[in-house]
Amino acid sequence: MSASSPAPITVALLGGGTVGSQVARLLVDNAADLAARVGAPLQLIGVAVRDASRARDGVPAHLVTDDAASLTARGADIVVEVMGGIEPARSLILSAMAAGSSVVTANKALLAADGGTLYRAAADNGVDLYFEASVAGAIPLLRPLRESLAGDRVEKVLGIVNGTTNFILTKMESEGADYSVALAEAQALGYAEADPTADVGGHDAAAKAAILAELAFHTRVTADDVSCEGITGVTAADVEAARDMGFVIKLLAVAERTLDDSGVIVRVHPAMVPNDHPLASVRNAFNAVFVEAESAGAMMFYGRGAGGAPTASAVLGDLVAVARNRISGGRGPGESTYAGLHVRSIDEARTRYYVNLDVADRPGVLAAIAQAFADNGVSIQVVRQDGHGDDAGLIVRTHLATEGSLRRTVDNLRMLDAVKNVVGVMRVEGEAGP
Amino acid sequence: MSASSPAPITVALLGGGTVGSQVARLLVDNAADLAARVGAPLQLIGVAVRDASRARDGVPAHLVTDDAASLTARGADIVVEVMGGIEPARSLILSAMAAGSSVVTANKALLAADGGTLYRAAADNGVDLYFEASVAGAIPLLRPLRESLAGDRVEKVLGIVNGTTNFILTKMESEGADYSVALAEAQALGYAEADPTADVGGHDAAAKAAILAELAFHTRVTADDVSCEGITGVTAADVEAARDMGFVIKLLAVAERTLDDSGVIVRVHPAMVPNDHPLASVRNAFNAVFVEAESAGAMMFYGRGAGGAPTASAVLGDLVAVARNRISGGRGPGESTYAGLHVRSIDEARTRYYVNLDVADRPGVLAAIAQAFADNGVSIQVVRQDGHGDDAGLIVRTHLATEGSLRRTVDNLRMLDAVKNVVGVMRVEGEAGP
Repeated sequence: MSASSPAPITVALLGGGTVGSQVARLLVDNAADLAARVGAPLQLIGVAVRDASRARDGVPAHLVTDDAASLTARGADIVVEVMGGIEPARSLILSAMAAGSSVVTANKALLAADGGTLYRAAADNGVDLYFEASVAGAIPLLRPLRESLAGDRVEKVLGIVNGTTNFILTKMESEGADYSVALAEAQALGYAEADPTADVGGHDAAAKAAILAELAFHTRVTADDVSCEGITGVTAADVEAARDMGFVIKLLAVAERTLDDSGVIVRVHPAMVPNDHPLASVRNAFNAVFVEAESAGAMMFYGRGAGGAPTASAVLGDLVAVARNRISGGRGPGESTYAGLHVRSIDEARTRYYVNLDVADRPGVLAAIAQAFADNGVSIQVVRQDGHGDDAGLIVRTHLATEGSLRRTVDNLRMLDAVKNVVGVMRVEGEAGP
Repeated sequence: MSASSPAPITVALLGGGTVGSQVARLLVDNAADLAARVGAPLQLIGVAVRDASRARDGVPAHLVTDDAASLTARGADIVVEVMGGIEPARSLILSAMAAGSSVVTANKALLAADGGTLYRAAADNGVDLYFEASVAGAIPLLRPLRESLAGDRVEKVLGIVNGTTNFILTKMESEGADYSVALAEAQALGYAEADPTADVGGHDAAAKAAILAELAFHTRVTADDVSCEGITGVTAADVEAARDMGFVIKLLAVAERTLDDSGVIVRVHPAMVPNDHPLASVRNAFNAVFVEAESAGAMMFYGRGAGGAPTASAVLGDLVAVARNRISGGRGPGESTYAGLHVRSIDEARTRYYVNLDVADRPGVLAAIAQAFADNGVSIQVVRQDGHGDDAGLIVRTHLATEGSLRRTVDNLRMLDAVKNVVGVMRVEGEAGP
């Protein structure tokens, strides 16, 4: 290298799995473009993996090590953490920052559990912390929230942030399949893991919801703050009832302000979304996040939420940003929790509901049921009666109501003689109006 | 202000129209949030307008001046230019940069005509140039292209970037209205101006296409490089034919690489988009931009493309970013035209086409027409024959073909006895495959 060439920006990579090997490949394949865009070459100095004896596509063999601690201690300009999990990822990131390295991570679990510790270490050591790849893979989403909307006031975030569950729900909808059949298909195609709990239980989405909520509302939110319900209880009957009403069922991550503006509520659960809402047409393993802001209005960000190459693209975008900061002497945005809103229970959330009832087929049933809603202050938007005799059913959609008042309504409905069974209860999101 | 408070970041605003007054309002209304997010207060030191005697909502009267040059010369930390037009905007921006001010602008016409001059002045003076609001209003789009995708390779950009034409086309589709009726409705509702040429002629979209193409392909692109066709020739019959085939017609801004990767082609024209493409459901005055990148795959950014408050939101996001740079000593991304690809003529573009023909109703017609396509190397994907006798029609959709070969095909078709009239020819975008 000639004396006039800019010094390379050194990069240490922790993790050589699906994402890590794609990051290594892109650093090599796109080296010339990256150098031009950064203003200096990005030089990969090592890749820490669990088993250094195994060959990996795209990862230069002489850079591979199983000693992550030593690689971290070398003080690279940038350490990329794509190992996942809480430990040893957290300790390695803190060591890296103490050694003066900026950090790019895709680790949603760690950020949602203990992001505050990472932010603090970044501030104490004067380094950057970037994590675009932690939510919704390749979709530029955290940068828009942290930067593009930094002059606006976010009102609500509604996201499809788990590709596995969206794939399963899409199959249930398009094929009329039961949950278990759609899950098996997702597993056969590699969209769901053998133990699908983290996805279908909503826990993966909850971690992402916490990260999104913290950025959107400038308030510390952890995964424990997120009310979480998965899709295992969604039935083919729910899907069919939704379709009949012009809705689709999606697993949503929702973060919103309380009515009095003093708090935020963050929740993950299946919800019915009207067909004409932009989220309704997000199918298969795609992700999308819908954001409502005071001045900007409604926005949506759509794309691939997972996979090695899409996630690596997001990591590389962060790498370029941090490298540019190293050269210009700038710093990316730090933690922003100044608003300090209270994280409230889902019991305070106000949403619309769908309630599906098996009812007795006799006069006066609708009056008794409507009274149960009215007694709890829940206003009915639409009622539909289906079938006769033993098949008589009633579907109710409500106006906005609190979780608590809806729960009391359902308790009352179960005690009515006219109600044989409460077949399904689900929240409705994405509708305008009261 | 106490000695320990951070010094304010000063802001001078050029332009007090729809966008400017919203920017001033947000600076006042959101002052506390902005100060917390930036780390220092943003202090508006003046607003230059054409007529200083007129009161403006949201603009403090004592800050209003009609002397833009003097305000610019005060060397504010940040000058916001929302006047529009080439001059005096360009001279004022260059003066501001020479005085050490960073610049945030929403001026698409100036950027598309002479962005290089602005970038150069920013580099020469060591200041920032940000312009998120210049394309697609509130939708965070330029920051994702400049930063989030900086480690990826963009293959194609397909955008609905003009709300007026999308509103008109949506009306034509939903009401079966003729172009002139839908235009009159858009004018009555304030979505189209009395002289709608800049919108319906595609020129506004072309300026935005140039800005997007430059960022996506790291190549200098100006408005003059963009092939531009508006929507004035779109008929109710085209819209109906599209619907019958499962398509909608959109005015698209398209930027893509040539097959041999040595060039880029940038074009604005009406196109048929399949109903299941994410762009198809972008209705009324909404904007959306679909981006395909090598690693990230397909993404879409959706939201409000115009209006005072949405555009002001984008300006404020840039203001916060530039203010943070001022404090950290960092700099935003500069011009990136290192790739230096050749901008090619639309004649080299390869797209699919829809061709709608009035034909004679007799044996052998289809064979003659198919031969005309084959003679020019254009491969047919779908043919549909409609009607009989004088109403006999034929609709053809082709596989990928070059503009030149399609033009020769249409010339040949016009000379066939079997073809009474070429009713419509339109490009088809957003389909996968050959």
